[in-house]
Amino acid sequence: MIVVPGPASGQLGSRIAELLGAEPVSVDYKGFPDGESYIRYTRSVAGEEVAIIQTTAPPQDTHLLQLFLLIKTAKDLGARSAVSAVPYLAYARQDKRFREGEAVSIKTIVGLIEAAGADYFITINIHNPEILDEFSIPSKNLSAIPLLAEFFKEKGLKRAFSLAPDEGALGMAKEADEVMGGGYGWLRKRRDRITGDVEAEGGALDVRGKDAVVYDDIISTGGTMALAVKILKDQGARRVYAACVHPLLVANAGERILESGAEGIVGTDCVPSSFSVVSVAPLLAKALRGVS
Amino acid sequence: MIVVPGPASGQLGSRIAELLGAEPVSVDYKGFPDGESYIRYTRSVAGEEVAIIQTTAPPQDTHLLQLFLLIKTAKDLGARSAVSAVPYLAYARQDKRFREGEAVSIKTIVGLIEAAGADYFITINIHNPEILDEFSIPSKNLSAIPLLAEFFKEKGLKRAFSLAPDEGALGMAKEADEVMGGGYGWLRKRRDRITGDVEAEGGALDVRGKDAVVYDDIISTGGTMALAVKILKDQGARRVYAACVHPLLVANAGERILESGAEGIVGTDCVPSSFSVVSVAPLLAKALRGVS
Repeated sequence: MIVVPGPASGQLGSRIAELLGAEPVSVDYKGFPDGESYIRYTRSVAGEEVAIIQTTAPPQDTHLLQLFLLIKTAKDLGARSAVSAVPYLAYARQDKRFREGEAVSIKTIVGLIEAAGADYFITINIHNPEILDEFSIPSKNLSAIPLLAEFFKEKGLKRAFSLAPDEGALGMAKEADEVMGGGYGWLRKRRDRITGDVEAEGGALDVRGKDAVVYDDIISTGGTMALAVKILKDQGARRVYAACVHPLLVANAGERILESGAEGIVGTDCVPSSFSVVSVAPLLAKALRGVS
Repeated sequence: MIVVPGPASGQLGSRIAELLGAEPVSVDYKGFPDGESYIRYTRSVAGEEVAIIQTTAPPQDTHLLQLFLLIKTAKDLGARSAVSAVPYLAYARQDKRFREGEAVSIKTIVGLIEAAGADYFITINIHNPEILDEFSIPSKNLSAIPLLAEFFKEKGLKRAFSLAPDEGALGMAKEADEVMGGGYGWLRKRRDRITGDVEAEGGALDVRGKDAVVYDDIISTGGTMALAVKILKDQGARRVYAACVHPLLVANAGERILESGAEGIVGTDCVPSSFSVVSVAPLLAKALRGVS
C-alpha cells in the first residue's frame, strides 16, 4: 500500500505513512489564479493499492473536489485500488429530508466519492453512521473518542464525568467512560429546525466537585458545547473540558466555549485547527493495515 | 419543461424562463456557518423535465457542488429528466495530461455531472469541444460569438477586424467575421508550460486605421488579451475592443487590458461580472426548446 497525503491532510497523511513504514507519495498541488485546483502525482501509482488521506474540512467544496481528483487520477494512472480515508466527511449532517424538497446532500457526496472511483471508504465519527449504507463499496466508521479520553487520562484527569451534550452523542460519552470510569450522562437538547437555536435541559447530574469532559463529534458554532459546559458548571462541576473529534470551530466558537467556563478545548487532527492536539494517525494506520 | 435558476446563474436563469414562457422554480439556497451549501426545491418537480441553469464560475468548487446537489435532488424528488445547462464549465482547460501524473481534471468533472444524474448537458464555448466526447449522455456546445459580434455591430462598429489571440481561437474570429465582415486573423502564441508566461507575434495584419475586436473564449488573468490589444494598436488599429464569452477577469485583469489600449471589454453573463453586457439567455432558451 502507498499513502497519499492530500492537500487538506498533509501532516496527518505523512504521520500515517510513517506509522505504516511507507514512503508518502508526494503530490504537487496548486491553485490556478482563477481558483481551480491542480494536482499531479510525482511518482507512478500503476498497479499499487493507493490510500488517499484527505479530510473535507472547510473549505469543504474545494477539499471535496481535490478528493475526487485524487481518486480519479490515481485510477486513471493505473492504481489497482483507491482507498479513500476522509477523517472528517463534510455534509454528513444533511442526512435527512427534514422539509419537503430539501437536498439530502450527503447522499450526493457519497455517490460522487464512489463515482470518482473509490474502492474502499474510511471515515471517523461520522455524524450518522447509517449514511455508510449508501455506499456500495466497503466502508468503515472509526471512533476517535477513546483517543480523546486517553489524552485526558494521561493529562491527569482522573475519573472525570463524561457528558454527551445531546442524546445523539450518548454513545460517545459511554465510550469515553470506558476509558475514564467517572460516570456518564447526557443532556436533553431541543433544536429549532428553522432558526437553528439550541436549548438544553439536564436532569441532576452526578458532577458536584468532579472534573468533567463534554464529548461531541463536531464543534461548529460552539453553541451546543458552550451550553453543556455552562450547565455542568452550574451543577457544581470542578474543571470542565470541551472535547470533540472534528473541531470546525466557526468564527468565535472557541472563545464562546472558553467564556462559558471551559478550562480548555481538545480536538483531533481530523480537522486541522489550533485545538487539534490529539492525532488520529494511529487509528487510521491500524484501519489501513486491516484493508491491505 | 420547468426552469431552475441555480444560485450561480439566478438572473440568467430567470431570463431564460421568461423567454420560454415558463415559471422559474424558486429554490432556497443558503450557506451554513461552516461553509456547506444547502438547497431546497420550493415546489414539486415530480414527473417534470427540469432544466437547471448553473454556471461554474468562481468559486468554481462551490458552484459545482451546488450543481451536483441540484441535479441529484431533482432526480430524487422524482423529476423525469434533468437537463444541466452550465454556461461556463470550470476545469475545461485541464483537458490533457501535459506532464506525467497530472489530473485531466475535466474528465473527473464530466464524470461527476453524469453520476449526479444529468440526462442532457449544454454548455457554451467550451475551451476544447472534444471534452464533450467524455459524456455518455447527449451534450451540446453552443457559441455566443455571433451574439458578441452583433452587439458591436449594433453599437456602430462597422466592418471591424476580428482577431483571434491564438490559433485555438481562430474559429471564433471567423464566426465573428461572418457577422462583422471586416476580415479576420490570428496571432501566433507561445506559452511557457511551467511559468505560464505568454508571448505572441503577429504577422502584418490588415488593421491600419480600422477598428478591431479581439475574441477569446475566456479572459482569466488578461495577459493574452492585453498582448493582443497592444499588438493591434502597434500595427495602427484605430479603436480596439476586447470581447470574450467568459469574463473570469482574475484580480486586475480588467485594468491590465484597458491599460494596454482597449476601448472597452465586453463579455457575456455566462460568468456574471461588471463586463457581462451581452446575455446568452436567447441562445440557451433556443437550445432548451430543442431539447424538450
